[in-house]
Amino acid sequence: MTYRFSADYILRTCGDAAKTAQIAAGEQSSGTFVEIPGEDEALKQRSAAQVELLEQVEDPGTPVLAGSEGDGTPTSWKMRLSWPLENIGPSLPNLVATVAGNIGELKQVAGLKITDLHLPAPFFERYHGPGFGVEGTRRLAGVHEGPLIGTIIKPSVGLTAAGTAALVDELCEGGIDFIKDDELQADGTRCPFETRFEKVMDVVDRHADRSGRKVMYAVNITGELDEMLHRHELVLKRGGTCVMVSLNSVGMTGLAALRNETQLPIHAHRNGWGMLGRPDHTGWSYPAWSTLWRVIGVDHMHVNGLSNKFWETDESVIASARHCLSPLHFDFPNRVMPVFSSGQTVLQAAPTYQQTGSSDLIFCAGGGVVAHPSGVGAGVKSLRESWQAAFEGISLEAASAKSSVLREAVEKFS
Amino acid sequence: MTYRFSADYILRTCGDAAKTAQIAAGEQSSGTFVEIPGEDEALKQRSAAQVELLEQVEDPGTPVLAGSEGDGTPTSWKMRLSWPLENIGPSLPNLVATVAGNIGELKQVAGLKITDLHLPAPFFERYHGPGFGVEGTRRLAGVHEGPLIGTIIKPSVGLTAAGTAALVDELCEGGIDFIKDDELQADGTRCPFETRFEKVMDVVDRHADRSGRKVMYAVNITGELDEMLHRHELVLKRGGTCVMVSLNSVGMTGLAALRNETQLPIHAHRNGWGMLGRPDHTGWSYPAWSTLWRVIGVDHMHVNGLSNKFWETDESVIASARHCLSPLHFDFPNRVMPVFSSGQTVLQAAPTYQQTGSSDLIFCAGGGVVAHPSGVGAGVKSLRESWQAAFEGISLEAASAKSSVLREAVEKFS
Repeated sequence: MTYRFSADYILRTCGDAAKTAQIAAGEQSSGTFVEIPGEDEALKQRSAAQVELLEQVEDPGTPVLAGSEGDGTPTSWKMRLSWPLENIGPSLPNLVATVAGNIGELKQVAGLKITDLHLPAPFFERYHGPGFGVEGTRRLAGVHEGPLIGTIIKPSVGLTAAGTAALVDELCEGGIDFIKDDELQADGTRCPFETRFEKVMDVVDRHADRSGRKVMYAVNITGELDEMLHRHELVLKRGGTCVMVSLNSVGMTGLAALRNETQLPIHAHRNGWGMLGRPDHTGWSYPAWSTLWRVIGVDHMHVNGLSNKFWETDESVIASARHCLSPLHFDFPNRVMPVFSSGQTVLQAAPTYQQTGSSDLIFCAGGGVVAHPSGVGAGVKSLRESWQAAFEGISLEAASAKSSVLREAVEKFS
Repeated sequence: MTYRFSADYILRTCGDAAKTAQIAAGEQSSGTFVEIPGEDEALKQRSAAQVELLEQVEDPGTPVLAGSEGDGTPTSWKMRLSWPLENIGPSLPNLVATVAGNIGELKQVAGLKITDLHLPAPFFERYHGPGFGVEGTRRLAGVHEGPLIGTIIKPSVGLTAAGTAALVDELCEGGIDFIKDDELQADGTRCPFETRFEKVMDVVDRHADRSGRKVMYAVNITGELDEMLHRHELVLKRGGTCVMVSLNSVGMTGLAALRNETQLPIHAHRNGWGMLGRPDHTGWSYPAWSTLWRVIGVDHMHVNGLSNKFWETDESVIASARHCLSPLHFDFPNRVMPVFSSGQTVLQAAPTYQQTGSSDLIFCAGGGVVAHPSGVGAGVKSLRESWQAAFEGISLEAASAKSSVLREAVEKFS
């Protein structure tokens, strides 16, 4: 079978779009800018990228990327390029060099955003994909329906290992399902990885003995590969149930090498994503970018949250979450659990449920848990009640009338 | 000793700059958005990021990043933030999460470009740094002065292993110093890595037996970590003298794991760089971004070329090259060899030499070598003569009067 892979883009150009698309396809496959003697037309053709689609869309009329060339005013186009898989084989690093390499540097290109990737089966056969996904995470966390109610340990940095464990004790006592390190907390000298992890697990285990359910602690193992492998091993041996990594810091080949060894869910933090996803005319869309990590095999992907403290619109957040829960490929769905966070409180439960159309998600609230007027336990309880109300289609106001912890949360966070 | 590390930015904001800088510093260290009970002021302070500098610069007046918040029109600022090294230890992945993580997603931030990094000695002590640099590369290539005259095998993809070797034969015959794979050529089924490498090395060795000098072949080993390690081992055993990787595809921890094992110069390809470097108001500057790879330990860094086929200005190209040749740290210079490429011909030799102020560089011409009217050998000879003329301060016109190959090249490429 002759496979091809393809990438979708929004292309802007100040020149002729058809010509620009051909130049881009040539640059990313068998073309050169000067005709050279050794070039044989047949061998060029069999390796050439093809322009599969070029369809004009509305141009935003904003300034173009630096160094753009061309006479006209910019126009915008949906463009799909495809390549024979034989050019690179099912290799994600070489896929990225092909679909997102020099193409963005062409002066004919006045804007280029990668909006989707279409990968054939060999990529999914070669990489592990998620080892746990939604079902495996639910099993390990002992949460069989509804969202995993989670929180982030704050302050991000500054707490000692003992301070972290004390906070985790309160959270476990309060009935939390999921706790994660902040991405800034990894292995600093004031809160070293091993001490923090051991102290937290002592607390988690003590509560598990009491409750019969082990709170999932996504401990941040981000570091060099040997450190991450060593930390994963420690977590596994000690009975931990999740490891967290910062995707953009670790990079693709480091993550794939880690994934080859992991036996626990990988909680994938997207910090740094803003640099790739926020600009209109360059970078990646979330569906395209997250496809890379889902093929390699993470289990949880951050998607921001509704009414978040960051720049992103609710529409964009929901599109990301729905993408995480949608199959990547008919035979290889590689579904992952979306992680909502950033300024989340009881107020976002109902809209998150309604707009995502699912509760196969992790709902992380920082202040929304620990800043509850009646304490951490009340914070967790109020979040769970807000989700229960959402499931039952009862308004927060109506549900608050029957619950003081929910009423306090609504008052505090409105 | 209490170390700090710092990052410089160009910050744009539509709000109050001093407040935005404080929010950014808080987000990237011990701050949270909601005051929470467990927070102790002393522990927050000892881990806090500091705003070291905030100085207004001219704002370009262009639109701001999506989702930016604030009343005013945007203003631009030089900002320096610093952090205690204790927060993360000398860990590049955690450095990136700290200096380039969620900070770019803040709605108060209307634009944020990282312009420089200042790393203390522990980073340089922990990572290998370049194993070869300028001196080691010259020694292995047998080129003791002047630039390494190089070329890129084209077409990028489509050639078989035998076709590649035949082209390399011509290039070696012509007296080339350096040959690199295109970044699109890695291990496709039509030109598998091992076959290509073996066939090329047969040719390189044959010419070395004749000339006493082994042409440096930067073979593209980009792939998953196990593949890269295996390929490096093959190259080393077979007497190859260079390996090439695509930095943005491989990522930081994969490269560091590879660097732990390499015994050959690493030729670092920057494809995908446009996405990070081309936008004005987001991403990285070349000095900041290349610092990461130089600390890990690459030996050659691509810098584009003068009058290139891409978007970049000559001024920007020269600044990158000069940065490669400047020390990163007083005790750890980590100098790397800049690689000029993209539409390079005899015409760019003199301005490249004059503006870089050095010939410690690799000068790669594709069409500029193989499209010479009198053949590949004449192409290489003409480039060498153009550099000799530059060294002697003789104009290309004057030098062409004495050399037919140079005259032909000037006519062809003007």
